[in-house]
Amino acid sequence: MSRNLTPKSIDASHITIAQLMQSESANNLGNVHGGWIMKLVDEAGALACMRHSQHRVVTVAIDQMVFNHPIRIGDLVILDAEITYTGRTSMEAEVQVVAENPITGKRTHTNTAYLVYVALDENGKPTVVPHIRAKKPAQKRRMEQAKERQSRRLVQKK
Amino acid sequence: MSRNLTPKSIDASHITIAQLMQSESANNLGNVHGGWIMKLVDEAGALACMRHSQHRVVTVAIDQMVFNHPIRIGDLVILDAEITYTGRTSMEAEVQVVAENPITGKRTHTNTAYLVYVALDENGKPTVVPHIRAKKPAQKRRMEQAKERQSRRLVQKK
Amino acid sequence: MSRNLTPKSIDASHITIAQLMQSESANNLGNVHGGWIMKLVDEAGALACMRHSQHRVVTVAIDQMVFNHPIRIGDLVILDAEITYTGRTSMEAEVQVVAENPITGKRTHTNTAYLVYVALDENGKPTVVPHIRAKKPAQKRRMEQAKERQSRRLVQKK
Amino acid sequence: MSRNLTPKSIDASHITIAQLMQSESANNLGNVHGGWIMKLVDEAGALACMRHSQHRVVTVAIDQMVFNHPIRIGDLVILDAEITYTGRTSMEAEVQVVAENPITGKRTHTNTAYLVYVALDENGKPTVVPHIRAKKPAQKRRMEQAKERQSRRLVQKK
Amino acid sequence: MSRNLTPKSIDASHITIAQLMQSESANNLGNVHGGWIMKLVDEAGALACMRHSQHRVVTVAIDQMVFNHPIRIGDLVILDAEITYTGRTSMEAEVQVVAENPITGKRTHTNTAYLVYVALDENGKPTVVPHIRAKKPAQKRRMEQAKERQSRRLVQKK
Amino acid sequence: MSRNLTPKSIDASHITIAQLMQSESANNLGNVHGGWIMKLVDEAGALACMRHSQHRVVTVAIDQMVFNHPIRIGDLVILDAEITYTGRTSMEAEVQVVAENPITGKRTHTNTAYLVYVALDENGKPTVVPHIRAKKPAQKRRMEQAKERQSRRLVQKK
Repeated sequence: MSRNLTPKSIDASHITIAQLMQSESANNLGNVHGGWIMKLVDEAGALACMRHSQHRVVTVAIDQMVFNHPIRIGDLVILDAEITYTGRTSMEAEVQVVAENPITGKRTHTNTAYLVYVALDENGKPTVVPHIRAKKPAQKRRMEQAKERQSRRLVQKK
Repeated sequence: MSRNLTPKSIDASHITIAQLMQSESANNLGNVHGGWIMKLVDEAGALACMRHSQHRVVTVAIDQMVFNHPIRIGDLVILDAEITYTGRTSMEAEVQVVAENPITGKRTHTNTAYLVYVALDENGKPTVVPHIRAKKPAQKRRMEQAKERQSRRLVQKK
Repeated sequence: MSRNLTPKSIDASHITIAQLMQSESANNLGNVHGGWIMKLVDEAGALACMRHSQHRVVTVAIDQMVFNHPIRIGDLVILDAEITYTGRTSMEAEVQVVAENPITGKRTHTNTAYLVYVALDENGKPTVVPHIRAKKPAQKRRMEQAKERQSRRLVQKK
Repeated sequence: MSRNLTPKSIDASHITIAQLMQSESANNLGNVHGGWIMKLVDEAGALACMRHSQHRVVTVAIDQMVFNHPIRIGDLVILDAEITYTGRTSMEAEVQVVAENPITGKRTHTNTAYLVYVALDENGKPTVVPHIRAKKPAQKRRMEQAKERQSRRLVQKK
Repeated sequence: MSRNLTPKSIDASHITIAQLMQSESANNLGNVHGGWIMKLVDEAGALACMRHSQHRVVTVAIDQMVFNHPIRIGDLVILDAEITYTGRTSMEAEVQVVAENPITGKRTHTNTAYLVYVALDENGKPTVVPHIRAKKPAQKRRMEQAKERQSRRLVQKK
Repeated sequence: MSRNLTPKSIDASHITIAQLMQSESANNLGNVHGGWIMKLVDEAGALACMRHSQHRVVTVAIDQMVFNHPIRIGDLVILDAEITYTGRTSMEAEVQVVAENPITGKRTHTNTAYLVYVALDENGKPTVVPHIRAKKPAQKRRMEQAKERQSRRLVQKK
C-alpha cells in the first residue's frame, strides 16, 4: 500500500480536549494530583500526533513539567495540543494547559509541556511520518525551538 | 450580595469537550454505548450553562436523541455546547456531537441534543440567571426555535 | 443456522438493575448528574432487549426524559426494564427509575424512559427479532401506546 | 431521639442488584476475577442490612466462598440478598449469586455467601438493630442455621 | 512444548502490592468497604500464584475473612502474598493485609487471608504446577498448616 | 503544637507500590500509555514524601522522563520511591519503575524519574520538613546528585 507523505500544516494537527475535574482525581485538600494532569497532557499530545501521522503513536519522552498553579476539584481543565517537530518516525507535540473555574470564569495558564512520540504501523513497528509546513513566522520560530529541544534530548541520551 | 444580571452573549457560553473512546465505554462489537454519549452530552450542556449562569446547575430535561451513526472504540468524540434559551432560573443548551477517527481524519456529525438545566444557589435552591443576547441573525433564529421547544415541553408537561 | 422466532411474552424480558449512587456520579452539591441516570437507563433497556432478541443490541433513540426529583449520593437507584414494542429488527424498551434512600426506606419514582434498540448479528448487521405476546389487558394497552410512540418517531424523522 | 426497634420481616430487607460484567472486571481469558464478585457480594449484603437497620453498616466478616462456575465478560450477574440473623448491633446477610448469559438466557447459580455487618450511628459507633420475624417455616429454618453459623464464628474467634 | 516442573522456593512467589485508599472505595463515613479489600486480596494472591505457576490463574475459594480494624480514606493498604501449598493444578496463597496511615506512620495488621487458585493453560484448562520447597523451619510449619486447611476444605465440599 | 523536625533516614521513606496493567490503561496495540505510568510515578513519589514529612504533599515538578521499553497489558508494574533531597518545605523523590511479566518472570527496568513535592499544612500552606540523613556512601552520593538537579531546576526557572 503506497502512502501519502506530503507535508501537512501544523494547524491540521491542532486539537483541544477538556475535562471537568472530579473527586476521583484529587487529594483530600481538593487539589488535583499532578499525575492526573500528566496523564491528560499525554493523551492530548498523542491525539495531535495521531492526527498528523494517521497512525497509532507511542510516547517516547516528556520534558520537565513544573506545576506552579494548583488545579482544584470543579475546575475545567482545557488542553490545546499541536505538532511542533517531525523527525523520520518521531514527532514533538506542544501541550498548553489552562484551568478554568466555570463559576467565576477565571482562566489560568498552568503549564506548557513538550512530548515526543513515535508513529507505529499495524505490526507495532516505527513508521515514517509526513513533515510539517509552517504557515506563519511564529510557527517557524516555534519549529526552530523544537529542533533545539530535540538536539538537547539527543545529547542527554548519550 | 448583589448580583450582576446584565445579559450576556451566546458565544461566551460556548464550550468544547473532547474524549477518546476507550474499551470501558463500548460493547463487545466495539460500538460505544448510547448511554455513554448521553452522559457526555449532559456534561457538555451543564458546562455551557455553568459558564453562563456562574452557578452550579442541575439537569431538568433532555429532548429525544436519535443515534444514526455508530461511534467506535478509538474514535475521538467532540462535543460543542452553547446556551440557546434562558427563562427565569432555567436555561436550554444545544450540544453538537461529532465523531472523528484520528487515524483517517474522517469526521461525522452524529447528534444534535437539547437539554434544560436550572441554576442552583449555595443552598441548592433555584436562582435567577442572566438573559442572552443574540449577535447574529442565525443566533436570533436559533433563539426563536429554542423558545418553541420550551413551549412544547411545557405543553407536554400538562 | 435456523433461528427460533416464536413470539415471546413481555414478562420474559423483564429485568431489574440496581446501583448505589457514589461520589463519582454526583456534583459538589451531592446531586447525581442526569447523564449518569441516562447511562443506567440505556443499560437497563439494552439488557431487556438482549434478553428478548438473544442478540447484541445497539441504541437507536431515546425519547425525551424529564428529571423532576433529585437523586442523591447514598441513594439506591433501581431500574425496571421490559420490552414494549417490536418491529422487524427494532425493539422499544420502557424503563422505570425509582430512587430509594436505604436509611429511611423512602422510595420515589423519578422517571419513565422509552428507548429504541436494533438487534445485531455477529457481523454487526441488523437481524430479525421475535414478536411479543401480551398476556394481560394492561400489557395490550401498553403495546398500543408503544406503537403510537414509534409512529410519532417515524413522522419526526421525515 | 427515640428509635423504633419493632421486629421486622425478613422480606422487607430483600434486595436485588444486577450488573453487566465488562472488560474492566476480567482477566485476559475473559473470566471475571473472583475479587470482583466478592466486592459485589459485599455491596448486596450491606444494602440488605442498611434496609433492615436503617443505618450505615460496616462489614465484620465474610464466610468461606467457593467459585465453582466461571463468570464471563458479557454475563449479567444478579445478586439477591436478605437478612438471616440479628444480634444486638450485628446482622448476618445471605447473598445468592446467579450468572445469566443474556444472549442464550442460560442462568447458573454460582455462589451462596454469608456476611456479618455491624450498624453504625452518626458518630461511627455500633448501634442497636431491630430483630427479624420469620413468616414461613423455611425462614425459621434458615434463621436457625444462621444462629449456628454465628456460634461457630464466635468459637473460631477464641 | 516440554515444561519445567522443578520445585521452586516459596520466596520466589512473594509479592507486595500497595494502593492508596481514595474516595471511590469508601462509604460516607470514610471507611473503606470490606468488598474493596477482598478485591485487592484476590489480586495479590493471584499474582503470587501466577509467579509460581507461570500461568494465568483463576480463583477457586477464599477462606473466611474477619475485619476487626477499620481502614480509612487516605490510608495506604499494603498486601504481601506468597504461595503456601500446591496440589496438582491448584495452589493456596496467604495474603497479609496492613493499613498504614502515611501521615502518622502508624501501621496496623488488619487481616490474614487464604485463597485457592487453579492454573490455566492457553485453552483455559487446568494445568500442572511445580511444587514448592520450604527453606526454613517456619516455612515448613506453614506448609503443614496449609495442607490441613486444604483437607478441611475438601471435607466441607462433600 | 510543637513539631518534631529531627532528621530522618532515607530508608524510612522507602515505599513500593505495584499494579497489574489492565485494558483500561492501554491503547489498541496493547501498550500501556506513557501518561498512565506518569500518574503511578507521581503517586509513588508523593507517598515517599508524605511518609518523610508526615504531611499531605503537592507535586511541584517532574524532570524529563524517557520511555525506552514498552509496558504491556498483563505486566505487573513495580515502583520503588524514596526521598533524595530536602529543602525548607520541598523534597525530591526518586522513583524506579520496573515492569515484570508475571508469566515469564522477566523483569525490565523501564524508567528512573525525579519529582519535587512541597509539604502542606492543614490550611494548604507550605510547611517545614525534616532533613534526611544518609547512612551509606551510596546514599551520600545520591544526595549530592539530587542537590545538583535542584540547582539546575532553579537556574532553569529564572
